[in-house]
Parts: sequence; structure tokens; C-alpha cells
Amino acid sequence: MNKRMIAYVSGLLLLCEAGLLLFPVAVSLIYQEQTYFSFLITIGILVAAGILLILFKPKDKTIFARDGLTIVSLGWILLSLFGALPFFISGEIPNYLDALFEAVSGFTTTGGSILTDVEALSKSMLFWRSFTHWIGGMGVLVFIMAVLPLAGGGGDLHLMRAESTGPSVSKLVPRSNKTARILYGIYLGMTVIEIVLLLIGGMPLFDSITLSFGTAGTGGFGILNSSIGGYNTFCQVVITVFMALFGVNFNIYFLLLFRKFKTALKSSELWIYFGTMGVASIAIAINIRDYFDNILQAFHHAAFQVSSVMTTTGYSTTDFDKWPEFSRTILLMIMCIGACAGSTGGGFKITRVILLLKYAKKTLRSLTHPRSVKTITFEGQRVSDEAMHGTVGFFIIYVIIFAVTLLIVSADKNDLITDFSSIVATLNNIGPGLGKVGPTGNFSSYNALSKTVFIINMLLGRLEIFPLICLVTPSIHKKHFRKKL
Amino acid sequence: MNKRMIAYVSGLLLLCEAGLLLFPVAVSLIYQEQTYFSFLITIGILVAAGILLILFKPKDKTIFARDGLTIVSLGWILLSLFGALPFFISGEIPNYLDALFEAVSGFTTTGGSILTDVEALSKSMLFWRSFTHWIGGMGVLVFIMAVLPLAGGGGDLHLMRAESTGPSVSKLVPRSNKTARILYGIYLGMTVIEIVLLLIGGMPLFDSITLSFGTAGTGGFGILNSSIGGYNTFCQVVITVFMALFGVNFNIYFLLLFRKFKTALKSSELWIYFGTMGVASIAIAINIRDYFDNILQAFHHAAFQVSSVMTTTGYSTTDFDKWPEFSRTILLMIMCIGACAGSTGGGFKITRVILLLKYAKKTLRSLTHPRSVKTITFEGQRVSDEAMHGTVGFFIIYVIIFAVTLLIVSADKNDLITDFSSIVATLNNIGPGLGKVGPTGNFSSYNALSKTVFIINMLLGRLEIFPLICLVTPSIHKKHFRKKL
Repeated sequence: MNKRMIAYVSGLLLLCEAGLLLFPVAVSLIYQEQTYFSFLITIGILVAAGILLILFKPKDKTIFARDGLTIVSLGWILLSLFGALPFFISGEIPNYLDALFEAVSGFTTTGGSILTDVEALSKSMLFWRSFTHWIGGMGVLVFIMAVLPLAGGGGDLHLMRAESTGPSVSKLVPRSNKTARILYGIYLGMTVIEIVLLLIGGMPLFDSITLSFGTAGTGGFGILNSSIGGYNTFCQVVITVFMALFGVNFNIYFLLLFRKFKTALKSSELWIYFGTMGVASIAIAINIRDYFDNILQAFHHAAFQVSSVMTTTGYSTTDFDKWPEFSRTILLMIMCIGACAGSTGGGFKITRVILLLKYAKKTLRSLTHPRSVKTITFEGQRVSDEAMHGTVGFFIIYVIIFAVTLLIVSADKNDLITDFSSIVATLNNIGPGLGKVGPTGNFSSYNALSKTVFIINMLLGRLEIFPLICLVTPSIHKKHFRKKL
Repeated sequence: MNKRMIAYVSGLLLLCEAGLLLFPVAVSLIYQEQTYFSFLITIGILVAAGILLILFKPKDKTIFARDGLTIVSLGWILLSLFGALPFFISGEIPNYLDALFEAVSGFTTTGGSILTDVEALSKSMLFWRSFTHWIGGMGVLVFIMAVLPLAGGGGDLHLMRAESTGPSVSKLVPRSNKTARILYGIYLGMTVIEIVLLLIGGMPLFDSITLSFGTAGTGGFGILNSSIGGYNTFCQVVITVFMALFGVNFNIYFLLLFRKFKTALKSSELWIYFGTMGVASIAIAINIRDYFDNILQAFHHAAFQVSSVMTTTGYSTTDFDKWPEFSRTILLMIMCIGACAGSTGGGFKITRVILLLKYAKKTLRSLTHPRSVKTITFEGQRVSDEAMHGTVGFFIIYVIIFAVTLLIVSADKNDLITDFSSIVATLNNIGPGLGKVGPTGNFSSYNALSKTVFIINMLLGRLEIFPLICLVTPSIHKKHFRKKL
């Protein structure tokens, strides 16, 4: 394991976080809040720690697959530990564990909160909270990569693979740092367009920026206790559309950018994603039509909520926890399915669902056609046994983590629906669940152990399990890891 | 497909059911109930239909793998359709769908009921209801096989594999009908021992017999509204122990019978089964200690309930739905895990859980040791890729069925916990769930569509999905099926 390189990249990461914290400092100065002090202290700590770490400048910049996984998981933990400091130092979230929960929920783009009154926070803290979504959405290591190439050879690719979402089935441009730059370009561009549209819709600038951050990262932190409920229909529609767009595989935007329209439209993942959204929205709209003045309004709220939970954003326009059982069950299911691979959204990912369905189909086929050997293909390409094993393994481990964490959390004094949906909401980085953690609720009723479990689940969800497990697995047979992919 | 053979075996099956119905006739005569009439009408119909079908006596008695699956699934459906008639004809369950629910719940050893007042049934109907558990536990085709050899070559083995539970990892004696005879011998012997012990404990004869049927088949139909709550501690302990014993892989009893004690005790499935039971019982006992006079009593009820739901029997001594969330969550989880493969119990089966855990371990290993190729072994034997694929495929399809049926049932007007646990309870053949279908509740609040879904789920659960899917899959490429295993 290239320890010096791990320390070096971690140092860069902390310095990067220090730089990003200048934005909330500016916000606190604009709104004449005293909070700039807590940001400056944090920046000071980050700079000191960051410089200390980059002193380990490595001679060998090679990053192996396992190093990549370690850097990403360690990096995200450090990012959260320091990112929680402003909340804590300012005293706006007096308990450090709660502050950490909020920071992890931000970076992992979960959007679940321990705050009972969001509106009590200062503007600069609200800004930082939403900004963490934007940083976490595309990934901070990808950001650093876009600015300077970190490692030679396949090293950057290892980092990128470890930080991006979904099983990496294909890659698009040969050079990693160019890929990173284009990705961030698209990401920034789409965020700006959303901000402008919300401004046109009459939303104040501060709200437009913070809510667009939350949409782009598919995070879901609101700045009002009513989430998106208080804004006008136009703004709600804009957010509905942009949530859906940020849940799309960014490869698609890549393809569109390079004018490969045909290839982009051939993506079965894309069609299944929008198809599922459409069917779910219509089904829920019919189911909740009596809750609203007319079917159009019902559809508007249904579509918003479907787009919100399927992309794992977590915004709400209304208290969907009060909707009928059928609608709540649909929402719970699409929460688990999640967004497209390679998007900023969380969840199990459409691609993985498709691969599992194909696997199931193959199993049934071999039952009635014992001699047929059929390979699994996805979007025209053969899926390697390795990729398939990885997906199936991921599914099994996902279910195991789900069961184990549910069991731990159930020892806390809440009802089963709240517990169950808390695990769904944190492991899939959604934010709100049902019951006490529903859209009008929060995670404050849980004890410290449960909150710690949720923090771990959010990180497991965002980094998709494997990097974190790598971090805690001892490296016994070192020579085996030295594999360049 | 050997259609004549399918018709012939189905005919035998109906005649067998007619014979088994003579027992409740005897009960009705002993208790001087008028119900014998409804049993006799059913017997008449069965004999007529049975004779008609065995007229198709086939020249070729070969049974291929797919034929085996078809016979078993068709057979179980017929068994249930006719088995529901006595309830319906007697008017004790006036709605045929409800009667069918009760019959399917019986044969599949689920034990869930649509009856709000079990004690209103006549003795002979209670007897038939419990007797269906005993018939379904070991399987009626295995019973027929024990009496006369059905097919030559591997045909009987195909039937047996399709009807028995769990992935067939190993087989023990070369001849199928001898295997069937030994299996039923063990089954009958253990049932008789339980009846005797319950009689010693002071339980009336009728109760001893019916409750032993329910234990042996891991069914769970009680004859009192309070299930097992009204009996003394000794009887409750006897039932606790026997539920656990009937959840053991019958291969173990085979081995004990042939004095292969060492091999029997080496079974990792057996240890994990009892280990899980022990840990769950202790955890629940500690969690519910305040609900009872002392910890010993708490452990008694915890152990009873764990044994009951893990073996998917479904008896209860107390209303465990009122227990704390932690205990309910543990129960819900062991409901899904289920009993050992090759037992009369349902659920996902310990063996499958072990195989999936090994698969997950292999996935993680390949993450940190990309070059290592490690085969999965179970109880000393290498698990073939085919068997592993089958297990993983089964898991995925199980989850899909779970999700789809939950969605359908959620459109009915019940709460999510009730819906969720109803699916758990029917798909795993447990019986009671939580909420409205908890130990003091029943399935009567659901509409006809939901009840139909539950009926299908119970059959899918007992026959472990694949045979029923085979039945509804059209056979396009006939030549492909012709595979003798």
C-alpha cells in the first residue's frame, strides 16, 4: 500500500476543503453574521493538518486499486469530521455527534437532519449545509482531479471509480483528469441553469442557490421547515425536472455533448429510469387524487415526490407520509431502486436492478432449458462474469448491512416503520423516510448509537459499501493487492 | 412433456386424498357431527376424478426434470382445490375463496387463517385442518412414492426434489422410494412421540393429535383462539422442542438412524440453526424480561416464539406483537431465514443463507485479493457453480416476488406493517405476522385480490417458487427439456 500517497492526497483534500469553506465565510460577511469566526477556525485547522500531510510528498505516485478505495473512504471520513466543525464551533449544533450527522448527511447527499427547526440556523450555516451536498454530489476527489492530475497511469481512474456511483460498466474518455473536468463542467452548468430558472420563477437568490445545490447533489437539505412546500408551482416544477435530470447517468450528457445522440437515446437504463418514474407518478396520482383539488394537482405532487425519492434527493412539497399505504409502498420501493449509475443520486441504482433482473431471467431459463448457456448482455455489451458477480455480491452485502443495522436501530425506542424507513433513507442517501423520520420529522429522536449507525450507513451508501469495507479489512497478503487494472 | 404421466400421477394423488379424508370422516362419527356428509361428497368427487385420470395409464413412465416440477405444482393446486371442499360444503366456511385460503394455508403448512373464531369450527373440520399440515409437511407425492414406485430411473428423484425443501445439495440413499419410506417412518415416529409426551403432560387426546400434526408439518393451525397459550408449561416446552426438531434437516435423522453420528454432528447448518435460535431466544428474553414475572419465564416464552417462527410453525403462547420493537424485529428476521433445508419448515432456509454469506465473503475477498480464485465449499463439499447460481437466482426472484406482491397487497386498506408481515408470513409459510395479522389477528380484513395473492404466495413458498413458475412458462423448445439428471 502506498501510504505516503494516501497521506499526500488526504492533505490535498483537506486544503481543498479549506478553500471551499471560504464561500460560507463570504456568505456570513454578506449577511453580517458572527459565524465567520467558526469557519475561519476550521479553515485554520484544515490548513495546518493539510500542510502537515502534503509534506509526505511521495516519490512514487502510483495508486493501486486498493489504494484508491482507501483514499476515497479515508478522504470522505476526514472531510466529514472537519466539515462538522463549523456547526459545532458556532454552537448552532451544540452536540458534535449531531454536527457530524449533519455533515455526513450533507456530503453523502442524504439530506436527513437531526435539526427540529431548520429555520433557526444562520444563513451561512444553511449555505454550508447545502454546499456540502453540491461538493458531495460529484465527489471532491473528482474535483481535485479536475484541477490537477493526482497520479499517473490508471491511478486517477481507480480514484474516480471508487468515488463515482454504480457498477462501472463503461468508460468514455481515455484521460481521467479530462473526464473529471468535463463532468464538473456539466455539473456546474446545469446547476447554474437551475439557479437562473428559479430566479425567473421569483425565488430569492439565496434560496435559489442553496436549493439548486441540494438538487444538483440530489441531497435534499431544505432551508425552510416546509422544505419546498412554500414555493410556487413553477419553481416546484423546475425542481421536479432538475432532480430527475441530476439522477441521469452523466455518461448520457457526455454523449449529448459529443453529439452522439443515437447512442445516448439507446440507453436502456435511461428509458427504464424515466419509465419507472412515469408509471409511479401516474399510479400515485390516481391513488391520491382525493387529497387534492384536481387530478392535475395530484399528479404535480406525485411527480415531484417520485422524482425526489427516486433520485434520492428527499425534498417534499407535502407530507407524503399521510398518503395512502399504496403510495407510501411505491415510494419506499423506488427509494430502494434509486437513480441511474454514474449520476449524483444514490440508492441501489437502476443498472444494478436491471442486471439482477437479467440474472433472475437467466436462472429461470436454465430451469426450463437446462442445456442453454446464455450470456448476459447490457446495452449491447456482454456483461463479464466478474461484473455480474460484483453486482450480485453487492446486493447480498447490501441486504446483510440492511438487516444488521435495522436490528441495532430497533433496540432504540421507535416504531418499526420509522426504523425500517430510517435504514432505507440513510443507506440509500435519501433523507426523509416514513413515520417519525417522515418529511415533517427528523432523526433527533434516536440515541447516539443509532445516529452512529446512520452515519456509517450514509457513508456506506454514498461510497457504495466496498471502499469502506476495504478500509477496515486488514491487508495480510500485500503482494496480492498490487494489481493495476 | 409426458402428459399422460402427469395425468396419471395427478389421478393417484386425488385418490390418495380421498383415502386421507376417511380420517376426518371417522372423527365426525366419533364426535357425532353431521359434517361426515361434506367429507363423503368430497371423497366421491375425488374418486370419480381420480379414476378418470388414471385411465390415462402411460406406457412410458419416464419423468423428466420439467415433468417433475409440473406434476408437483399441479398436484398441490389440485390437492388444495379439492381439500377446500369440506369447509365449503359443510357451510363452516361459507365463502369458497376463504375455504381455499384455509386449505392452501393448511397444505403449505403456513397456518394463517381467515377465521375470526377458530373455536366455532366442528371437531372434524379442526381435525382436517390440522391433518392438512401433516400431509403437506413431508409432501403427499413423497407419501405416494413410499407406497408404490411411480416412475423408473431418475423420475422419482425429480418428483422428490421438486417437493422437498431447500437446494438439494446431497442425497443419501440410492433408491428414491426407499428414501421416501424411511422419511415417512421418521416423520410418523416423531409425531407419535410428541402425541405421547403431550398426553403425559395432561393434554386431551384430540388436542394432542391435532397440535402434533401442526408441529410436525411446522404448520401452526391451533384449535383454540389462544393458540398454545392455554396449555401448561410442560406441554409448551414439549411443543417448543418438537417444533425445533421438525425444523432440522431430515438428512440428520437419516444419518443418526444409520449411526453416522460424527457426520451428523459435523453439519454446519445444524449448528447455525440451533445457534441462531439460542442467540435470538436469549436476546429476546433479556428484551422482554419486564413483561413476565422472572427471566426464566421470559426465556420460556422467547424460546417458544423463536422456535415457532424460525421453523415457520406459527404457534404462539402470548401476543408477541405487543413485545418491544427489538424483539419484533428479531422475530421478523428469523421468519425470513426460516428452518433447515430438507425439513418440514419453510422460509428462505439456513443453507441458502449460508451459501449467500459465503458468496458475499468471496466477493469481498476478490476485492482485496483480485487474483485469488476461491471455490465455495459447504460442509466439506465444493458447491458447483450451477448450485450457487440457483441459490442466488432464487434469492433475487424471492425478493422480486416479495416486492411485487407487497405492492399489490398495499392497495388494500391496511397498514404497512400488516401488509409487510403478511407477505413475510405467507411467502415463508409462517402463519401469523405482526399488526392485524399478528398472533391474535387473522387475514379476514383483506379483500379477495389480496387473499388470492396470499394463496399464490403460500404455494410459491412451500414449493420454493421454481415448480410453479415452470407451470406457467410455456414450453417452446420441447427438445431442450429432455434432460435426465
